[in-house]
Amino acid sequence: HINEERLFRNLSKSSEIGAIPGKGLRRLALSDEDKEMRDIFKAWCEKAGLTVRVDDFGNMYGRREGKKALPPVVLGSHLDTQPAGGRFDGVLGVLLALEVISTLNDHNIETDRPVEIVNFTNEEGARFEPPMLGSGGIAGVFDQEYVYSRKDRDGHSFQEELQRIGYKGEKENRLGDFHSYVELHIEQGPVLEDENKQIGIVEGIQGISWLEVTVTGEADHAGPTPMHLRKDALMAAAEIMHNLEKKIANTEVTVTVGKISASPDTVNCVPGEVYFTVDIRSTDDSLREEAVEEARTLIREVCQERQVDVETTALWNTEKIDFDKGIIDAIEESVEDSGYSSRKIVSGAGHDAKYMNNIGPTAMIFLPSVNGKSHVPSELTLDEDIISGANVLYQTTVALAEE
Amino acid sequence: HINEERLFRNLSKSSEIGAIPGKGLRRLALSDEDKEMRDIFKAWCEKAGLTVRVDDFGNMYGRREGKKALPPVVLGSHLDTQPAGGRFDGVLGVLLALEVISTLNDHNIETDRPVEIVNFTNEEGARFEPPMLGSGGIAGVFDQEYVYSRKDRDGHSFQEELQRIGYKGEKENRLGDFHSYVELHIEQGPVLEDENKQIGIVEGIQGISWLEVTVTGEADHAGPTPMHLRKDALMAAAEIMHNLEKKIANTEVTVTVGKISASPDTVNCVPGEVYFTVDIRSTDDSLREEAVEEARTLIREVCQERQVDVETTALWNTEKIDFDKGIIDAIEESVEDSGYSSRKIVSGAGHDAKYMNNIGPTAMIFLPSVNGKSHVPSELTLDEDIISGANVLYQTTVALAEE
Ligand SMILES: NC(=O)NCCC(=O)O
Ligand SMILES: NC(=O)NCCC(=O)O
Repeated sequence: HINEERLFRNLSKSSEIGAIPGKGLRRLALSDEDKEMRDIFKAWCEKAGLTVRVDDFGNMYGRREGKKALPPVVLGSHLDTQPAGGRFDGVLGVLLALEVISTLNDHNIETDRPVEIVNFTNEEGARFEPPMLGSGGIAGVFDQEYVYSRKDRDGHSFQEELQRIGYKGEKENRLGDFHSYVELHIEQGPVLEDENKQIGIVEGIQGISWLEVTVTGEADHAGPTPMHLRKDALMAAAEIMHNLEKKIANTEVTVTVGKISASPDTVNCVPGEVYFTVDIRSTDDSLREEAVEEARTLIREVCQERQVDVETTALWNTEKIDFDKGIIDAIEESVEDSGYSSRKIVSGAGHDAKYMNNIGPTAMIFLPSVNGKSHVPSELTLDEDIISGANVLYQTTVALAEE
Repeated sequence: HINEERLFRNLSKSSEIGAIPGKGLRRLALSDEDKEMRDIFKAWCEKAGLTVRVDDFGNMYGRREGKKALPPVVLGSHLDTQPAGGRFDGVLGVLLALEVISTLNDHNIETDRPVEIVNFTNEEGARFEPPMLGSGGIAGVFDQEYVYSRKDRDGHSFQEELQRIGYKGEKENRLGDFHSYVELHIEQGPVLEDENKQIGIVEGIQGISWLEVTVTGEADHAGPTPMHLRKDALMAAAEIMHNLEKKIANTEVTVTVGKISASPDTVNCVPGEVYFTVDIRSTDDSLREEAVEEARTLIREVCQERQVDVETTALWNTEKIDFDKGIIDAIEESVEDSGYSSRKIVSGAGHDAKYMNNIGPTAMIFLPSVNGKSHVPSELTLDEDIISGANVLYQTTVALAEE
């Protein structure tokens, strides 16, 4: 059904914007590279006859009218990436949505419902924490003031950068009532590949908690300061991290310390302050909440014992969600019609679909990730799987767009 | 003897150049602040009638001729600081040397031997690792090519920065044969204060080993990647650091991890690479060497067990040294004459005197550090102790400069 040549041409263009060694992408939200990709995406949308608009969070929408003035079927994901991310995470969801539109155009198909495609701002949360500020913004999870005030490492705010790249649109352009939201994405984990399935029908997203931890000891000279007089913030952090792994993480709960920095950060200074983050996830909300409490206790106890101060704050918290049964069924039917192998799956990663699910019927389609890898340059989804995904997304859209 | 008002005026001027909150200094080697301080120091030297010269490492010398053409008595230390260092570390050694010269001038004293004062480049090793590149350079420990090629975090080389601030002098200006080198410095540890002594007569410097460790695991998504499939470089580093503290450090051996960074350094990525440094010190060389071997083994074993790669390289190695008995005696006599309380002490920190000791008779004078603190803004040595130190340095110089 779909036009493979056009799809892979677009994907390979996207793979150039912010390219880094190892076939990866560095296209941080609201960076120059993000702007370049947005400009290209806008041109593609216009070429496909879509009316493009941008809302106050920088979310971009392309709309194809339907026969009837009904709430639209919405397809999309994000075009931003991790600092050393891959070419597929988010990108596929947007480009395959565009391919669905183009295929409808190719076949002169008029749908009953309008179809909108969307590129959400800052899904990754790699530049501006937490993730999914664009979709969370329109879903009312984050208010505009909060989103605008988020700062990157260099102190640039979301608002400043949105303005700078020329993508600060109007509040009235936000997505209105919608009939359904379907997000195609790479799995980013090993399950589909391990079980040799072509399509994942995503039933929900696990809960995620992020903590920020700042340990404050006392900086000292590494030479003349005896061990027993030290209040070494990094040794405290090391004990905490090691125990988080040993005591909190298990087969049901993942624990990740992704970011760390020490101050003053010279070889011959005992670190006086250490900052690190903790990412805790589980498909079981009560297990996750327990783990967060245990982590907080563990952090407090280690620091008390070492007589260093610590501040632990919640940076992000999302609960496990279940997607809409009707949309899941629609995806399942398309998969069955096309004869692809599939399985139901719960997402380990957060997605814009998570917040869209708060405000309308939502579900997701997963494609296999080679070696389960993602958020790295070596992230890969095979061409044949991309084609299957495009076809399933197309079939699902056609079905949902029928009144 | 000395002119307190002049001395504290100079010290308070130095405390302005690169001042940071909390009364600290950020005057990294070969930075703009270092240049500003060098310019001021040069002007002070010239005002005191000294002939100023700069060598190819940027070491600055001010020379006061003696009655006889003999090798000089040399006094000095360094004017660079840690990124968030104090006002006294290094600075006192240079400014009290200048005060000794000015006092000789005040009293129209002609010494038999010339007296030279010196400001060594990059003692701290905070910007360009390892420490003491200037004194190590003239002592032949580091060759010019090595010193010039050392890079800071931003990739700027020592040579570039030396040229940029206008302090790349001539090789023939390096210090020649000298009669004695005396370095006054703050203790940077708690011993003198604890024992209520005014002066430390430094007998030697403990040995120091620096390691650089790079752990390479695999970056992954923090969400969908199960714990048992991870090769988390930071969790490996945490286990290593915790064990370095528990198993390698003891009352005879200090172990410090001062610098750490993780990549890709975002909240939702399992770190694929972690870099950290290890500083190991002991007054007993064989204990230090054993500790380094044990640390290397521990690092290797943790990484093997976790199936992550690791590269451990030596960044710096110095052996324990003993200062010159004759210079120690000269200092001791001055202390006794002045009636100050004192004790013999071994330095926990490296100093330019360490490398000067390789090429000529050397010893050091320590002043108490309040709370034993140093390499932090709160570093403090009391005015009365500074005055005692200046007097001892003056008496020692006069004695040594006599043929
Ligand atoms: N899909 C994805 O990588 N989203 C980022 C949010 C998360 O950390 O799960
Ligand atoms: N004195 C001083 O802090 N020197 C730096 C070299 C060291 O790390 O000991």
